[in-house]
Amino acid sequence: MATGTMTPEESLALIKANLSEVLNPEIIDDVVLKEKRPLRVYWGTAPTGRPHCGYFVPMIKIAELLHAGCHVQILLADLHAYLDNMKSTLELVEYRAKYYEAMIKSLLKAVGVDISQLHFVLGSTYQRTGDYFLDTLKLCAPTTISNAQRAGAEVVKQTDNPCLGGLIYPLMQALDEEYLKVDAQFGGVDQRKIFTCALENLPRVGYRVRAHLMNPMVPGLGTGEKMSASDPNSKIDLLDSPDVIDKKLKKAICVPQQVEGNGVLAFLEHVIFRALNLKNKGDVKFVVKRRDAEPLEYTDIETLKKDYANDVLTPQLLKPALTRELDQLLAPVQAEFKESAEWQEIEKKAYPPAEPEQKKVKQKKDKGDPAKREAARLARQAQLAVDTVKEGVDKIEVKN
Amino acid sequence: MATGTMTPEESLALIKANLSEVLNPEIIDDVVLKEKRPLRVYWGTAPTGRPHCGYFVPMIKIAELLHAGCHVQILLADLHAYLDNMKSTLELVEYRAKYYEAMIKSLLKAVGVDISQLHFVLGSTYQRTGDYFLDTLKLCAPTTISNAQRAGAEVVKQTDNPCLGGLIYPLMQALDEEYLKVDAQFGGVDQRKIFTCALENLPRVGYRVRAHLMNPMVPGLGTGEKMSASDPNSKIDLLDSPDVIDKKLKKAICVPQQVEGNGVLAFLEHVIFRALNLKNKGDVKFVVKRRDAEPLEYTDIETLKKDYANDVLTPQLLKPALTRELDQLLAPVQAEFKESAEWQEIEKKAYPPAEPEQKKVKQKKDKGDPAKREAARLARQAQLAVDTVKEGVDKIEVKN
Repeated sequence: MATGTMTPEESLALIKANLSEVLNPEIIDDVVLKEKRPLRVYWGTAPTGRPHCGYFVPMIKIAELLHAGCHVQILLADLHAYLDNMKSTLELVEYRAKYYEAMIKSLLKAVGVDISQLHFVLGSTYQRTGDYFLDTLKLCAPTTISNAQRAGAEVVKQTDNPCLGGLIYPLMQALDEEYLKVDAQFGGVDQRKIFTCALENLPRVGYRVRAHLMNPMVPGLGTGEKMSASDPNSKIDLLDSPDVIDKKLKKAICVPQQVEGNGVLAFLEHVIFRALNLKNKGDVKFVVKRRDAEPLEYTDIETLKKDYANDVLTPQLLKPALTRELDQLLAPVQAEFKESAEWQEIEKKAYPPAEPEQKKVKQKKDKGDPAKREAARLARQAQLAVDTVKEGVDKIEVKN
Repeated sequence: MATGTMTPEESLALIKANLSEVLNPEIIDDVVLKEKRPLRVYWGTAPTGRPHCGYFVPMIKIAELLHAGCHVQILLADLHAYLDNMKSTLELVEYRAKYYEAMIKSLLKAVGVDISQLHFVLGSTYQRTGDYFLDTLKLCAPTTISNAQRAGAEVVKQTDNPCLGGLIYPLMQALDEEYLKVDAQFGGVDQRKIFTCALENLPRVGYRVRAHLMNPMVPGLGTGEKMSASDPNSKIDLLDSPDVIDKKLKKAICVPQQVEGNGVLAFLEHVIFRALNLKNKGDVKFVVKRRDAEPLEYTDIETLKKDYANDVLTPQLLKPALTRELDQLLAPVQAEFKESAEWQEIEKKAYPPAEPEQKKVKQKKDKGDPAKREAARLARQAQLAVDTVKEGVDKIEVKN
């Protein structure tokens, strides 16, 4: 099981490291220590919007799982991504899945991990089948609305009148564990209710329960706790140039001396320090330059947090250091993108330039016509539904 | 379009005859009068319990549709029947579907209708596919729980905490119209909300709306308004012998002079008179023998109802006459069954003798064990769910 010189015990420790919670850890113990085979883990993501810097948080854990010798499957949930955005074609979603795949591979290589045990599965290849449908119906039939709602409570957008999409989603996510033949599913701790839903429901249709690895929730690296998805300036795209990153990080909220809920510190802890650890095989050094003094050097996050709390390390000092480190982390990813005509082509097709905002003008113009008003109402309703499913589908555990 | 000497106008009149309501009748008019092709109609039924005499109510309308030259598809919803009763195997459901098919063919032949335009479709042949699943998800995604609940309100069993099965069902029923490529769906008027749900939702996924033919609700022929499904004595099985039919009809509630809500009179009106009309090509005669007087002869139901209201025709006179007529109607069906070794074999496999009641004893025995009690609770919960879906699936419009 262990890669290189890692013992099964070391491998097991790394699998469970840096997590908020593990459900049914004995399943993992058995595979690693008794069966002595690679643990099969899956992580699901719906290829919708462009992956941004927050994507690093699950990636770092996936890198650790690969480093620990796991067999990791990335489920590119194209079917759900398509359902999220019914106006787009399945073709567009396929390009986005390809973009996600290229990006995920590149990010993992950037932190120096061997990706020979990394596998990508397009959801539709097994979900868009009669057997999967039958199993979905078998799970839906005896599941009450309130149980399904409870399962998605922290992931699916909560409205007074939710849609069926958000109710079916947790059950399909449970089935994915069976169809991908995994020992464990990985996700954010916000997936906890969906995971326990899987534990409760899979045995009902004759399938075994799986272990669940849960990443902690990490505050967003941005202009506040909740970054606006519609404001491109609030998110750092993985292909943003150093000067754009510098500009966006300068705007990022980073209250002096405040450690809790600080997105910049959280990113340092959950991404930068762990990435440096993986890249440099345990030899971590994070340098903060100062104009009139010797640079501050950190080999662990706790010392850094203490200095920040004591205002030895100010946001003004910290941000340029993070910018530099993030630039370095992204440099090989962006270099790979620049060298790959294929990836560039995929990017163009996956995220075609947005059309100028016509909707607002159109809605105003149509205000007088009841039929058009009704059409607009239905469109809004459909969008709300789409958003609801989108929330349910997006299994990335970072809030920003 | 018309069979034999029937004009398109006569055909159209027979299609719309004896119905409670027709939605989008212009679709039917166009097909029959303008396109001059056979109207494609479907009626769905889940092959679960043994079809009983109440089954004649939709059968008579289907016979009329066939007589009017329609292309009629009977959807044997095996997938849903299986979901209804998850303890049974798919194999059992397949036998039930075969039993239903043999019985429906035989009933229609018994009323003298040409069944060359009658087609049977097993639901799983097109429902258990990736495309159907994708369409189901596309319909589920933007449909609110309350809209789905409203759609099934009169068909799906209403509980405080309904299951997802009952919510998905109306949407799948809508899709069936598209997949069976019909112009119209036929069902009981209790299906009205499911039908309007189809009208609202099919266009959302790019499919056209269909016409809907709705049979009136007919009070049950039995020991009261609500016949107990668990009491075999309250239902007249289509294979019951004349003496069993006699015994059961004697017990049937039939309040003297009361015409409204009288199951016996309703059966005469909606089954016997219309069956005689089809069988004898319009030459209807229903004879009621009397011990000390000339027999009463009826050529229309209105005169019979008047006599009944005035107590000229008593339940004691009416019941033997109905028994005789029902025996005659069922005689060819039962003869066909007796002559077909294949059908008999299907019947044995579709409805194997019930096992003696072990459940109650077992539940009592296990009362002390919390795990077993929990298992029993889950089993009851599953059964409740199964019942809910069953109610949703069973599209037969007769209440008994």
